Amino acid sequence: MKNTFGNNVAFTLFGESHGEGIGGVLDGLGAGVKIDESYIEKRLTLRRPSGRISTSRAEKDEYSFISGVFEGYTTGTPIAAVIKNSNVHSSDYSEMKSTARPGHADFTGYAKYNGYNDYRGGGHFSGRLTAALVLFGAIAQKALEDKGIILGTHVSRCAGISDAPFTDYGKEIPILNDRVFAVLDPEAGKKMTDEIQKAADDGDSVGGILETAVTGLPAGLGEPFFDTVEGMLSHALFAIPGVKGVEFGDGFALCDMKGSESNDPFCVKDGEIKTKTNRMGGINGGITNGMPVVFRTAIKPTPSIFKEQDTVDFRTGEEIKLSLKGRHDPAIVHRARAVQDAVASLVLADMLVGRYGSDFFGGDGK
Amino acid sequence: MKNTFGNNVAFTLFGESHGEGIGGVLDGLGAGVKIDESYIEKRLTLRRPSGRISTSRAEKDEYSFISGVFEGYTTGTPIAAVIKNSNVHSSDYSEMKSTARPGHADFTGYAKYNGYNDYRGGGHFSGRLTAALVLFGAIAQKALEDKGIILGTHVSRCAGISDAPFTDYGKEIPILNDRVFAVLDPEAGKKMTDEIQKAADDGDSVGGILETAVTGLPAGLGEPFFDTVEGMLSHALFAIPGVKGVEFGDGFALCDMKGSESNDPFCVKDGEIKTKTNRMGGINGGITNGMPVVFRTAIKPTPSIFKEQDTVDFRTGEEIKLSLKGRHDPAIVHRARAVQDAVASLVLADMLVGRYGSDFFGGDGK
Amino acid sequence: MKNTFGNNVAFTLFGESHGEGIGGVLDGLGAGVKIDESYIEKRLTLRRPSGRISTSRAEKDEYSFISGVFEGYTTGTPIAAVIKNSNVHSSDYSEMKSTARPGHADFTGYAKYNGYNDYRGGGHFSGRLTAALVLFGAIAQKALEDKGIILGTHVSRCAGISDAPFTDYGKEIPILNDRVFAVLDPEAGKKMTDEIQKAADDGDSVGGILETAVTGLPAGLGEPFFDTVEGMLSHALFAIPGVKGVEFGDGFALCDMKGSESNDPFCVKDGEIKTKTNRMGGINGGITNGMPVVFRTAIKPTPSIFKEQDTVDFRTGEEIKLSLKGRHDPAIVHRARAVQDAVASLVLADMLVGRYGSDFFGGDGK
Amino acid sequence: MKNTFGNNVAFTLFGESHGEGIGGVLDGLGAGVKIDESYIEKRLTLRRPSGRISTSRAEKDEYSFISGVFEGYTTGTPIAAVIKNSNVHSSDYSEMKSTARPGHADFTGYAKYNGYNDYRGGGHFSGRLTAALVLFGAIAQKALEDKGIILGTHVSRCAGISDAPFTDYGKEIPILNDRVFAVLDPEAGKKMTDEIQKAADDGDSVGGILETAVTGLPAGLGEPFFDTVEGMLSHALFAIPGVKGVEFGDGFALCDMKGSESNDPFCVKDGEIKTKTNRMGGINGGITNGMPVVFRTAIKPTPSIFKEQDTVDFRTGEEIKLSLKGRHDPAIVHRARAVQDAVASLVLADMLVGRYGSDFFGGDGK
Repeated sequence: MKNTFGNNVAFTLFGESHGEGIGGVLDGLGAGVKIDESYIEKRLTLRRPSGRISTSRAEKDEYSFISGVFEGYTTGTPIAAVIKNSNVHSSDYSEMKSTARPGHADFTGYAKYNGYNDYRGGGHFSGRLTAALVLFGAIAQKALEDKGIILGTHVSRCAGISDAPFTDYGKEIPILNDRVFAVLDPEAGKKMTDEIQKAADDGDSVGGILETAVTGLPAGLGEPFFDTVEGMLSHALFAIPGVKGVEFGDGFALCDMKGSESNDPFCVKDGEIKTKTNRMGGINGGITNGMPVVFRTAIKPTPSIFKEQDTVDFRTGEEIKLSLKGRHDPAIVHRARAVQDAVASLVLADMLVGRYGSDFFGGDGK
Repeated sequence: MKNTFGNNVAFTLFGESHGEGIGGVLDGLGAGVKIDESYIEKRLTLRRPSGRISTSRAEKDEYSFISGVFEGYTTGTPIAAVIKNSNVHSSDYSEMKSTARPGHADFTGYAKYNGYNDYRGGGHFSGRLTAALVLFGAIAQKALEDKGIILGTHVSRCAGISDAPFTDYGKEIPILNDRVFAVLDPEAGKKMTDEIQKAADDGDSVGGILETAVTGLPAGLGEPFFDTVEGMLSHALFAIPGVKGVEFGDGFALCDMKGSESNDPFCVKDGEIKTKTNRMGGINGGITNGMPVVFRTAIKPTPSIFKEQDTVDFRTGEEIKLSLKGRHDPAIVHRARAVQDAVASLVLADMLVGRYGSDFFGGDGK
Repeated sequence: MKNTFGNNVAFTLFGESHGEGIGGVLDGLGAGVKIDESYIEKRLTLRRPSGRISTSRAEKDEYSFISGVFEGYTTGTPIAAVIKNSNVHSSDYSEMKSTARPGHADFTGYAKYNGYNDYRGGGHFSGRLTAALVLFGAIAQKALEDKGIILGTHVSRCAGISDAPFTDYGKEIPILNDRVFAVLDPEAGKKMTDEIQKAADDGDSVGGILETAVTGLPAGLGEPFFDTVEGMLSHALFAIPGVKGVEFGDGFALCDMKGSESNDPFCVKDGEIKTKTNRMGGINGGITNGMPVVFRTAIKPTPSIFKEQDTVDFRTGEEIKLSLKGRHDPAIVHRARAVQDAVASLVLADMLVGRYGSDFFGGDGK
Repeated sequence: MKNTFGNNVAFTLFGESHGEGIGGVLDGLGAGVKIDESYIEKRLTLRRPSGRISTSRAEKDEYSFISGVFEGYTTGTPIAAVIKNSNVHSSDYSEMKSTARPGHADFTGYAKYNGYNDYRGGGHFSGRLTAALVLFGAIAQKALEDKGIILGTHVSRCAGISDAPFTDYGKEIPILNDRVFAVLDPEAGKKMTDEIQKAADDGDSVGGILETAVTGLPAGLGEPFFDTVEGMLSHALFAIPGVKGVEFGDGFALCDMKGSESNDPFCVKDGEIKTKTNRMGGINGGITNGMPVVFRTAIKPTPSIFKEQDTVDFRTGEEIKLSLKGRHDPAIVHRARAVQDAVASLVLADMLVGRYGSDFFGGDGK
């Protein structure tokens, strides 16, 4: 289904960085879900570039709903929204028509689309499209919250510096959701931004790790094969530009453990079955076990750097030197956290509606 | 679609460990694909437990095609095959009906299926089902090979010991495909098996990392959003029991790099556009760039250990002690490599048929 | 998805007429659905050839469940079943390898599968595969009945003779489900079988119309665009061999009405909103309105006739004369009614699970 | 997938009659397909109300592409377009909030969406949404034409009057595509419009039959089960508001034939395998046979009539009388022909890309 994801709650994404606009269609979330515009605005703000460590292309992300919203609630029919592009300097890119920027999709887009794709500013591959993910993800995230399912993401690692680990999801997730640079330890955050600034000064960029925790999910969500919780989430998370790895629970660190260390012993807490540790990230056999679902993504360094790079002109097949100009982020990890929350929210909403039916979210009727 | 995966080449998996049998249906691979039974048998053998470091439950994996194969070739219609279960000791499991084995899906299966699932030997969650994945994956893998697309997997890390890295895919992949314990450095392999044996002697288990490389894929495969090569592969790879992380190229190691280190510079080799390094694992913007596609999975330690563990009876809600008996693998990483090849082959076949049409694989007509 | 149909309850069909067997996989129906073997057997019997007006190939349809059933109930995981082929006379067909039987799929199968398809007895295109549809449809139909959703089909027209129309669904559907030749008016049924016999004596065949009624469906099922109740049902119904038309409510007869005649006026009966007439077949805007869902299919005459026919050898491109031998049905309409019930049951089960969640069918837990 | 249809070329529809606008997203058609705006405009004009026999709500259908089009060609990424609503008199509808107009989806929409749907002017159920189908269908239809696949639709029957049958597809289809009221026999068309006018004068409405023919399709398109050509087309055609029946070839008329009459004898013409007659509508076993694909839809009379009707207030449960006001079509059959062409084009494009790959349509590269 290419640019559509989800079985019961399906999201379709469209747009190009320097075209008319970007947007999406969300289908199946349910009728009577309240549209909280201040909530959406807050999430869009968390993604938007700001401050010294981001690109100076500051779009307002003014969205308008075309359909699916009526008198402040979802109608149950497809929700379409468009965010018009503004502040577009296409001349920045016109000379790049044939240049394969290393780490970018210029060459692969050319190979796939036989040269017809909109090359300006990355076109459909641009990180700009994630604004539409955040817009729609916010609707899903708010609907999840209203069901007691809370999620939040922190910059677990950036530029070689680690944030503190989660110790109390219930307290920490709401704090993260109020922070522009989402770290649990503000000291670590300060060091990260310093390193990002240093990289920027050097014409370079950095990457990081984003860790997300979700609380309140019922046990029994997901499928044993293929549509596992891990499979569904990872499928969508890899659509976030820059993500090159996804792990659940202790992930790659499990490889060096013994089974006696990695197994989470079951126990009973307050009458409910829980596990004493959560090395599996809340998932056994592809299915939620009632513990917080925890996962991490590896975000590669932003590929747009100002240092001179070797590359090719993919139309002529010549090797050339590239020195980028324009406006670029020295890091996107702190902005991508809002995208990660959004994508995860859309996937979880889909899985919940699949399990509990099309009226799971939404109102009691009007 | 739950137990079905793939858009154009779709695979459906079924079965329980101690039921009648396991099997699957493969639809859309194309007509006239030669069924090479010795190739299939070889792949099944690589997955089958063998030697001192595996379970003593040694099934022969005798499969029979029910449909879709005629006179040695695929007919183009759905290929169904069944592997009957034999050597089943159900009495081993009958007392486990209510016991949540740590690290297993007993509790989550109970929560999802309201207690109706076949609990014997893990039921539908059993690693046994991966035999069907290997059977069908072998058909796809052979079809890929006939198109010049070659893949292989090695145990990149196990029990704290690392294998040598790939240095020459063209030479090394065929060697791996002939090794029962797939390592590039046999010395490392020897150390790993020693450690697995030690863990077994201790009633414990180990995990590892499996690294797969795929050569010969054209540039331009995959979609920018959602159906990225990473997204499609990871979705299916997480269905392999024990996988808790998936990374492409340098994956999580990218997080500590600068952009000037992580970007793969483009160059021209023998008239073709290539990259000098391959930190992106052959994928830019979700789409293949013509370099080898490389990915790694994190395999958690086998959850079945003989040490006493704390757990609960999920029907009574009581906390209990568990001491497993029976036949269990102290490691599955070396067997899972065949499953990883199989799953990757099925996904790549799907993406290729989506791009090049339903006659991509198969014969010229008869 | 080719040979798989359904979003939440998905059915995959496989098999060839003269291969190892036929079968299917049903995924998503829910856990704890009782498997009623006598119910299944009864439905299979209704489809099976019998009496003077059917082919003398009388297979017993001995099915075996491979997976998904445990202690008499569905486990919630995929249900796979195989019906082995027996009583196969492949020699009947070997000389037909290149002959395009008029009205059959020999030529189109050849064109699609480049000559690799199993041509014996129609291969994958054989009406034989409908036994698997009936087997799985029976599971769904019984589950629907347990929810108060009752459906039945009668031979509304055959060989130019019309059956009586439905006048009381509640009474008549159960009667139909007990009749081998499903008509409301046994006199009409007698005339139909006489005409079928006459056609058979003449080496010819006849077609007919099958009308199905479904009671007990809630209002609000279906989607406004694409996944309308009509669209979902028709998509699957056209998979029944021989179906060339599908209409809902008064269908094609609506074309000659005025709006003032065709509109069903709403009214209140016993406190529920109903319509006074049901010319729309229980569906407005693609969505059920709480009235019985009623539809009809046009079944073409069986294409296998004994009269000499003009045709071609599609390998040599020569025009030839064809005189069929072997065992063939002079009519399938009376057998297809069981297939129609089955297909409709699978589709409706899918739509109900989509709306009410994965626990809609099935047990309260065990 | 609800409001998305298609496997390889997928179309998503959104919008409400009296909301911000309507539109859609088309994904997978291919890169380098020329966007011919005059062609699109012509198709939109054929759907638009005009003359005395249509509603006086005359929207201009001014569309704008948001994405997926660059320098006059498709980019290969999702094509999104929006048609803003104008000329909206919402006050016409405000008092209808609880009234179940007979033949409309007011009640079923209420039942499905728990009262949250936009009730104004039919909301998402409005025929207005078909403008978006025509817009996107025109892109697909033009792409088909460029591949030699030509389709056209005539009003085969309306208000009790029959048009002449097709006698020469090659000549007649282009003529139909130039006629506002698409009939093969202009005399019959004149009688039909007279009857429509009479019904309008009487406050009533009429229905009809639309017959479509498609030439130039290769043999071998479609799947034997479920994704048959008939199944795929009918699934989508039933999404056209008012369609209550779909038949292929001779459809329901086949029921009264003998097999010796209904079977299309194969023959060789100009070195190609053809059939002498085309009672099967170009499809055997769900797969195209190289003959023209021919199908008909039954269009019910427009449900909006001015005669007083019995109905209910579905919020209070009271029986009421309804006298509609406002602007309504006494017939839509002549406008729906453009929608039918559009929907068929989208489905056939999907099937062709599935068979021949993602570059089937589109340019050779730029």
